[in-house]
Amino acid sequence: MEKKVVLTGIKATGRPHVGNYIGAIKPALQLAGETGYSPYYFIADYHSLTTVQDAGQFKDYVYGIAASWLALGLDPEKTTFYRQADVPEIMELSWILSCLTPKGLMNRAHAYKGAVDQNLQNNLDQDAGINIGVYSYPILMASDILLFQSDIVPVGKDQIQHVEIARDIAAHFNRVFGETFPLPQYKVDTATAVVPGLDGRKMSKSYNNTIPLFCEEKELKKLIKRIVTDSTPPQEPKDPDRSSLFLIYREFASENEVAQMRNSYQSGIGWGEVKQELFQVMNKHLEQPRHRYKELMDTPREIDEILRYGAEKARHKARPFLKEIKEKIGYSG
Amino acid sequence: MEKKVVLTGIKATGRPHVGNYIGAIKPALQLAGETGYSPYYFIADYHSLTTVQDAGQFKDYVYGIAASWLALGLDPEKTTFYRQADVPEIMELSWILSCLTPKGLMNRAHAYKGAVDQNLQNNLDQDAGINIGVYSYPILMASDILLFQSDIVPVGKDQIQHVEIARDIAAHFNRVFGETFPLPQYKVDTATAVVPGLDGRKMSKSYNNTIPLFCEEKELKKLIKRIVTDSTPPQEPKDPDRSSLFLIYREFASENEVAQMRNSYQSGIGWGEVKQELFQVMNKHLEQPRHRYKELMDTPREIDEILRYGAEKARHKARPFLKEIKEKIGYSG
Repeated sequence: MEKKVVLTGIKATGRPHVGNYIGAIKPALQLAGETGYSPYYFIADYHSLTTVQDAGQFKDYVYGIAASWLALGLDPEKTTFYRQADVPEIMELSWILSCLTPKGLMNRAHAYKGAVDQNLQNNLDQDAGINIGVYSYPILMASDILLFQSDIVPVGKDQIQHVEIARDIAAHFNRVFGETFPLPQYKVDTATAVVPGLDGRKMSKSYNNTIPLFCEEKELKKLIKRIVTDSTPPQEPKDPDRSSLFLIYREFASENEVAQMRNSYQSGIGWGEVKQELFQVMNKHLEQPRHRYKELMDTPREIDEILRYGAEKARHKARPFLKEIKEKIGYSG
Repeated sequence: MEKKVVLTGIKATGRPHVGNYIGAIKPALQLAGETGYSPYYFIADYHSLTTVQDAGQFKDYVYGIAASWLALGLDPEKTTFYRQADVPEIMELSWILSCLTPKGLMNRAHAYKGAVDQNLQNNLDQDAGINIGVYSYPILMASDILLFQSDIVPVGKDQIQHVEIARDIAAHFNRVFGETFPLPQYKVDTATAVVPGLDGRKMSKSYNNTIPLFCEEKELKKLIKRIVTDSTPPQEPKDPDRSSLFLIYREFASENEVAQMRNSYQSGIGWGEVKQELFQVMNKHLEQPRHRYKELMDTPREIDEILRYGAEKARHKARPFLKEIKEKIGYSG
């Protein structure tokens, strides 16, 4: 049986933190390791350009993301791992699809509508500060998905609409020019719990409550000490499932360790001790990746090489399919 | 002194008629022949996709346009003559520019506003029937222009705004990422008079009053006979400058012939005789191109080869410049 193409785009708009790792990177790497899938994972650098318009930052984010995924175990032989801007076929298909996309469909996209609402609340013109990249980005995403004939696109709930838009555009193209694109399915990972940040709210860059994934050992220890707890005194039993520390712990510890920690909570372990244990398992888990991450960040040419290799594999698949698509619209070059 | 880049896009949405020839093709070929210019002429096939969504028609139009210009004397050695869809760098730059284009700028584009007005008049949703290709097409045109660092873009009055939009986008990019794009100038050819059609109105496909440029000799004679005249009887003097026949005649005849015809009008030539003379000069002028046109249309592979050669020249210039642009935004692949 042919393997199912599973596609994931990683927007390069910041260095990854522990929340990104637990919520996105870890499950994606797990999925990539399963048999029956042919994973296409890419850095959506051209998408980032809608908001990141500073060359230094752009470069830094792209390398940071690539180094992180590689350091955490992404295998560039098993996964087609590439940079969007290395695959010009995506941009070309994006234009083709834009001619098949009713403007009304983009007007109804959540992200754009959200930006309009915010402008209106601030008594601004409804399109103030919105560039066409932001507005038409769902078409670029449709192109990302459709060019590789993706079967499955794992997404967060807020991204479901984008996959639906890709399906709509694909279906429209198929109607006009004949059966060409398989319709992609989204896959929402509901198992993943919200990862708490230092202050107990969802870990998020915008709350400034994150633990950078590859911070130094010392920094890691310091940040873990800052994670808020309730004021239950030592000896007393504690509820693991309502404890930020435990929710993070269970993502890095082994099954046995997690079971033991549950017991320790019930028998009244002190918060200080939990924090120490948490540091131990996190540090053990991240020590090697941290080292590899640094190594890669020190030799960006190595990252470029890996990404170029991925782009070659991606284009090997994209080129003949784009040719087929272009022939359908009447191009004969 | 370096040659100035003059760029013209030819939308492939129909077989050329005599009005297209006099109004656009002839002056463009003249300009291409002047020294001091480096002409880039291209078939805007990807632009046509906004409206032409039928593979057979798409192909037919593209070959028809290419064969016409070549038959009329376009020299693919002196002019870089290519198909938009053969130069993927244009699509890639188009995405980059879309991230630098405020949505408000597209909202104000004439063509889009015209379509919205029409929808509102018909009590339809303002965006009914408008696809994103139509809406964002000025960005594609900016990319066409800016990728080749065009100095001059000859346009009709209705296209001035598009060159202004290209300038705006270029200036914005230059502000954000540093001096990159020279600002293109438009050039409106005011000397070209309106070409009258069979019924005396402007020759236009939408009025169904055209003379196809490469119709058969017999057809040409028949169509010229149908051109309306006033009812001035033979012998009486006639005003050449208000006569459709003369306005077309002077575009195909030599200077001497034109001067003689002026005299004949004053001395009362009959309409039948003018029509015969007009047929003579037009047929003489178009005989060879008509033959060459047919030859090319019979061997589309020859057209493909010429266009591929042009695309190679175009990409030779586009590739290193796009690389420079991508480096400015922070790409390092």
